[in-house]
Amino acid sequence: MTKNRLEAFSDGVLAIIITIMVLELRPPHGSSWHELAALTPKFAAYVLSYLYLGIYWNNHHHLMHAVDRVDGAIMWANLHLLFWLSVVPFTTAWVGETATPDLASAPAEPAALYGFTLLMAGMGYYILARTIIAEQLRHSGGTHSRLRDAVGQDTKGIASLALYLAGSALAFVNPWIAYGLFATVAVIWLVPDRRISRRSISD
Amino acid sequence: MTKNRLEAFSDGVLAIIITIMVLELRPPHGSSWHELAALTPKFAAYVLSYLYLGIYWNNHHHLMHAVDRVDGAIMWANLHLLFWLSVVPFTTAWVGETATPDLASAPAEPAALYGFTLLMAGMGYYILARTIIAEQLRHSGGTHSRLRDAVGQDTKGIASLALYLAGSALAFVNPWIAYGLFATVAVIWLVPDRRISRRSISD
Amino acid sequence: MTKNRLEAFSDGVLAIIITIMVLELRPPHGSSWHELAALTPKFAAYVLSYLYLGIYWNNHHHLMHAVDRVDGAIMWANLHLLFWLSVVPFTTAWVGETATPDLASAPAEPAALYGFTLLMAGMGYYILARTIIAEQLRHSGGTHSRLRDAVGQDTKGIASLALYLAGSALAFVNPWIAYGLFATVAVIWLVPDRRISRRSISD
Amino acid sequence: MTKNRLEAFSDGVLAIIITIMVLELRPPHGSSWHELAALTPKFAAYVLSYLYLGIYWNNHHHLMHAVDRVDGAIMWANLHLLFWLSVVPFTTAWVGETATPDLASAPAEPAALYGFTLLMAGMGYYILARTIIAEQLRHSGGTHSRLRDAVGQDTKGIASLALYLAGSALAFVNPWIAYGLFATVAVIWLVPDRRISRRSISD
Repeated sequence: MTKNRLEAFSDGVLAIIITIMVLELRPPHGSSWHELAALTPKFAAYVLSYLYLGIYWNNHHHLMHAVDRVDGAIMWANLHLLFWLSVVPFTTAWVGETATPDLASAPAEPAALYGFTLLMAGMGYYILARTIIAEQLRHSGGTHSRLRDAVGQDTKGIASLALYLAGSALAFVNPWIAYGLFATVAVIWLVPDRRISRRSISD
Repeated sequence: MTKNRLEAFSDGVLAIIITIMVLELRPPHGSSWHELAALTPKFAAYVLSYLYLGIYWNNHHHLMHAVDRVDGAIMWANLHLLFWLSVVPFTTAWVGETATPDLASAPAEPAALYGFTLLMAGMGYYILARTIIAEQLRHSGGTHSRLRDAVGQDTKGIASLALYLAGSALAFVNPWIAYGLFATVAVIWLVPDRRISRRSISD
Repeated sequence: MTKNRLEAFSDGVLAIIITIMVLELRPPHGSSWHELAALTPKFAAYVLSYLYLGIYWNNHHHLMHAVDRVDGAIMWANLHLLFWLSVVPFTTAWVGETATPDLASAPAEPAALYGFTLLMAGMGYYILARTIIAEQLRHSGGTHSRLRDAVGQDTKGIASLALYLAGSALAFVNPWIAYGLFATVAVIWLVPDRRISRRSISD
Repeated sequence: MTKNRLEAFSDGVLAIIITIMVLELRPPHGSSWHELAALTPKFAAYVLSYLYLGIYWNNHHHLMHAVDRVDGAIMWANLHLLFWLSVVPFTTAWVGETATPDLASAPAEPAALYGFTLLMAGMGYYILARTIIAEQLRHSGGTHSRLRDAVGQDTKGIASLALYLAGSALAFVNPWIAYGLFATVAVIWLVPDRRISRRSISD
């Protein structure tokens, strides 16, 4: 029951975050393709953030699959993750408004903040996973954790954190390096995730 | 469990999309009927998009009825469909702001983009159905798919895609041909859908 | 299952409608009580609409309590009710922006439209109840409908429709008569509803 | 069933409230850190309100854990609590817009209203708990209430109300005393709550 309500609340928050980002996509004042094309950076930012939130929803789902009990620490670790994800629409809007189609003039700061938000969300996810594992070990007298067995080394998660950090720093060389790295991380999660999840969910 | 959470998340996203469109309906500055009447195109666009999202929610519901297992491919196909539906409030706002009551001066571009969004959502639905069928065939050793039996030829779905495409093209002749076609497709889905669903859900 | 998803979707839409209305409550530019007091009509409109949506959520809950099966007609009757409720934030915003604290100068049109929206929502509720009863009679061979037994004459529902209509008309005499009537209907539903529901839900 | 739907609706409303607050965080017009830093008060107000809503969601969850039946009085007491929580985004926006980084010039009124909203939400929670206890006593013939046994004296709840009241009054001495007190109450709820909930949920 408790786990169900945690999932339902998280689903609600994630569904709202993923959807309200589209409120940033204000229609152009005119009605020409030219004016619509000026929204390309905002649209691209929306697509990237949509992918990230889809990945988080997907991974959150797998995480909860391996959870048996929910305590207060898990609840707050989950709310901490959702907090950083709730900041994504804000940073997405900043990226979309400042990353003009003119590639040369895109500023570094929004790209760096976007990477920082992804980093904090990634760390929030890591903390949530560790909190669940700690609870499972404590409950089993330190011998067993279903989630630890399922996650293993989690090299992909840790590599992502490093790439977010690298992207935020390299944004000051050129923000498009940062955006390229953030898009790459999204693709990394998208592709093999489908293979893994097919197995784990079918069980 | 997994299927339930996919439905719950989809319901959440669809509920939010269908509701936030009303945020585009800003009350007029004055308080006369005349000023309210200026909102007619926006209101009409809201009604049409509300119908489309209602149809998608209804059809999504039927689709999920025939699903047994959810894997990563189905999850992403579902998120892909939801993505294009999440763009509907944006295109609805563009239509509503540019399709002034003066019929002659309505521009073509918003009508064409509205049709394009419907086309992409329609294709997203088609891809989701095919992904589910592929999973069911794979799981049964290629012999059986509950969804394929239920959907059959899906001539209505394919005809809709053709009409969206035709509407988007004909928008450049006259956008009201496009809006007429899009409204017609909505009515086509509304009417017989009631007959079919009564049977399939009562089972 | 189908009924659960209808409830979940309706809950989602109602939760969003009841919450996004608060987005109309924009904080004043200054920070004095005087400037805050200028928001009184908006706040009062929010409270009234919140009460109405709470009543609808409550009644919808009771309605669904007496439902066994959901078919396409019930789905669309439900979406029709939700449509008119989704218009409430718009009419609430119009009322809140035009009903200045200066009582004498409040315009009639927003009050009349607010009443019209309540009337349409009330009729939507009535149609939904009739659609459910028709399905139950059809399914039982015309002999039995749990909902018809539970609802009885529904004099309160029909009286409410008459009061919405009267309020909309009397708004052109004085809008405050209309607002008084709409508030009265809300109180009527609030008070005895608690008594009835205590019995019906405890069963 | 009824309890589940009350939880689902409350989760939906709380998820929306906690998420739409981020819509107040509008990206700065420029792209420099300096312009971003100007949002610090808004961000801090968002963090504080996020914590409060997380605490309420957490506590609401515990409250419902001890509920067996839901009647109309509990439904309306719950809607009353949600009403005051729905006002939090509004007061948060007022705080965030007026509490400029220049500490000396922050006005008292928004701080006092923020405290008043917390006070009303706290009283709403108290009323909801009392309503549930009354229903449980009535149902058991006055002898037993699971919630009363679980809550005990609820000194923390009553102390919080006193601190909200003190904060609202002391805002007129200096608003930062008020904000300090409100942050302190949040921390008080955060810290021991984790210990208690770990026990109660693991059961």
